[in-house]
Amino acid sequence: MARPHIVIVGAGFGGLSAAAGLAGADADVTVIDRHNYHLFQPLLYQVATAGLSPAQIAQPIRSILRKAPNVRVIMDSVTGVDRHRRVVSLEDGEVPYDTLVLATGSRHAYFGHDEWENVAPGLKTIDDATGLRRRILSAFEHAEESSDPEARRRFLTFVVIGAGPTGVEMAGAIAELAHVALRHDFRTINPRDARIVLVEAGPRVLAAFPPTLSESALRSLERLHVEVRLGKPVAECDERGVTIGDERLEASTIIWAAGVASSRAAQWLDVEKDRVGRVVVGPDLTVPGHPEIFVIGDTAHATGSDGQPLPGLAPVAKQQGGYVARVLRARIGGRAAPGAFRYRNYGAMATIGRRAAVADFGWLKVDGTLAWLLWGLIHVTFLIGFRNRFVVLFDWLWSYATFQSGVRLITGPGSH
Amino acid sequence: MARPHIVIVGAGFGGLSAAAGLAGADADVTVIDRHNYHLFQPLLYQVATAGLSPAQIAQPIRSILRKAPNVRVIMDSVTGVDRHRRVVSLEDGEVPYDTLVLATGSRHAYFGHDEWENVAPGLKTIDDATGLRRRILSAFEHAEESSDPEARRRFLTFVVIGAGPTGVEMAGAIAELAHVALRHDFRTINPRDARIVLVEAGPRVLAAFPPTLSESALRSLERLHVEVRLGKPVAECDERGVTIGDERLEASTIIWAAGVASSRAAQWLDVEKDRVGRVVVGPDLTVPGHPEIFVIGDTAHATGSDGQPLPGLAPVAKQQGGYVARVLRARIGGRAAPGAFRYRNYGAMATIGRRAAVADFGWLKVDGTLAWLLWGLIHVTFLIGFRNRFVVLFDWLWSYATFQSGVRLITGPGSH
Repeated sequence: MARPHIVIVGAGFGGLSAAAGLAGADADVTVIDRHNYHLFQPLLYQVATAGLSPAQIAQPIRSILRKAPNVRVIMDSVTGVDRHRRVVSLEDGEVPYDTLVLATGSRHAYFGHDEWENVAPGLKTIDDATGLRRRILSAFEHAEESSDPEARRRFLTFVVIGAGPTGVEMAGAIAELAHVALRHDFRTINPRDARIVLVEAGPRVLAAFPPTLSESALRSLERLHVEVRLGKPVAECDERGVTIGDERLEASTIIWAAGVASSRAAQWLDVEKDRVGRVVVGPDLTVPGHPEIFVIGDTAHATGSDGQPLPGLAPVAKQQGGYVARVLRARIGGRAAPGAFRYRNYGAMATIGRRAAVADFGWLKVDGTLAWLLWGLIHVTFLIGFRNRFVVLFDWLWSYATFQSGVRLITGPGSH
Repeated sequence: MARPHIVIVGAGFGGLSAAAGLAGADADVTVIDRHNYHLFQPLLYQVATAGLSPAQIAQPIRSILRKAPNVRVIMDSVTGVDRHRRVVSLEDGEVPYDTLVLATGSRHAYFGHDEWENVAPGLKTIDDATGLRRRILSAFEHAEESSDPEARRRFLTFVVIGAGPTGVEMAGAIAELAHVALRHDFRTINPRDARIVLVEAGPRVLAAFPPTLSESALRSLERLHVEVRLGKPVAECDERGVTIGDERLEASTIIWAAGVASSRAAQWLDVEKDRVGRVVVGPDLTVPGHPEIFVIGDTAHATGSDGQPLPGLAPVAKQQGGYVARVLRARIGGRAAPGAFRYRNYGAMATIGRRAAVADFGWLKVDGTLAWLLWGLIHVTFLIGFRNRFVVLFDWLWSYATFQSGVRLITGPGSH
């Protein structure tokens, strides 16, 4: 058999761990991503809230895979897949494959209100994060310059929609920015007057966590003066604010952390998908009838041992990428394939602010300072590259000690 | 006399040192800048060439001046000055002044070819730098993906126009990026095949330095395989390349480091300006007939003790800002004003690459490793903020030890 060509689309946690697992295998591997960097998404909200620089949580894909001579990286956008001809179409040409691994992640879903995207942007890429950073910091600038009390109040109101981990972390980080880091910076306004409102349609924050930790997170948010609105869906979003149930909130900054939909992989393949657009895969993560097509991470609807679909979390994607690499290495070596994919849940965590976090390890549930320290330790450990680990840790210690956040830059389109 | 209102336009080296000198003075000070950050411009080329992150060389103006309660900061663009009504017009309102300090810096000049700006961008702001970084890194990506040898060659050709300090530093840094940092990252192309061409209309590089140091810089550039073209002006710039004299260079990346013109301050004031648009000021840096208007830094045409106009350098702007603050403090206190402004020249330096730099202290001229170490030491010392100093130093040591550069991110418009 000729040396097989494995094409991996997406260099997030799933795609990258598949590629790393195939380094040195007897196969040619091509990784395709529309960005030149792998992003450590769990810390992206810290870029949006001026705590970290983009380069601290992003690493060039080429540089991560430089020591794997059988792996090639292409920066381009995929526009489709022809599963009969076994070809991936790019904006700039096409790439044939013997085996395809789709790990294209997810995107924001506005539940049929795509017009909300411009006024309530979400957080998926570095440009999303620097764009949000610009909006948040500019709001304080506009408030400082404004002489109209009503406009000033609108500029100082920040609404975060969705109280999953991203929403909770964003709301907490904006509250700390306003109440701590910026507190001496203005002369006309008092940044402590900023209102941060976290909106959740469900009955509690961090719904994927045990109720006791949701309670703890809620108390931490309230200590940071975040107003939490539970059980009310968003009825309307526009340039001047949000309507929640029948309450109107005038706000110049709205952040979308609610809905997530899968990327277009199911459309490309034209195969069975679930309600949020994920490709339904078998126990070995291949598309039924297509043993040469794997779908992993947020793009896949895979079933856990409890019969429930696996959640869209970094560890799921990572473990699936590693599993796919093992399956493919077994196939290449003519060995028996490993059994069905099984997700090992080591736990979940979310941070709210200084010395406030929650962590659920199943056998152990912690909150407060201990959870916060664990959260920092684990996130720094999983950052790629010693340099990033060191610099992020330094920045965290620095802002912890000085109450400052270091990356308060307004850059990009519209910033002159 | 009522407490005077001093308005400072521009928070570069000049404006910021004037503001810092007036902290705690018996006056209300307003600093206006279109960005929210002060930029350490001498290191901006390292952002453009993926060596440093924007936040490492930029600091929020508010945060620098937070301990000066008499200083207010406004982020807005100035659109004009009415020197009769004593009012500064902003995009968003107007600000009256008793004393005005204009420190608005300079911008690129294309010598009557403004249409070159899009194809040959210059380097003044953080967005310029991240835009150039995107262009430079994307060129390597396009070359890797291209199957046409001619297109590949065009993508791998980088032309820097102007061999002053910025041009020399850019050319050296791109050469090191291609020949060192990227050397294992690609599979189709060899980044070492990149051509870096430095074009200078004058007879030597670093014309403001003594000829022996120009010679030394030229040798360092040649060691980095930078092709230097001297004595030939640019005849044409377009999307596919440059024409120098009658030589045509096909290049997808062109960087403008040649002409500098003053900002629009002279137009706002409608007063005498020199050939490059700088406001001609008296020995005390005020506009003739207007003791209440100071112009400093790159915007001013001030005369040195040798009768020559002072150069557009950071130390000149900084010393002028400090001088203006002393003059104003004397006026406020009813004391005699200090004598005419006198520039103290402590020297000039430029770096070319690893262990290659030149430094001219007048009484001492050095090059090579010693000049490079001095360059690093002095630049780190003058960076604002301990955190930035530490992190920049760490990044420099890291890339020196690993031959890597840490910020190879393609972000912003057009990067998907």
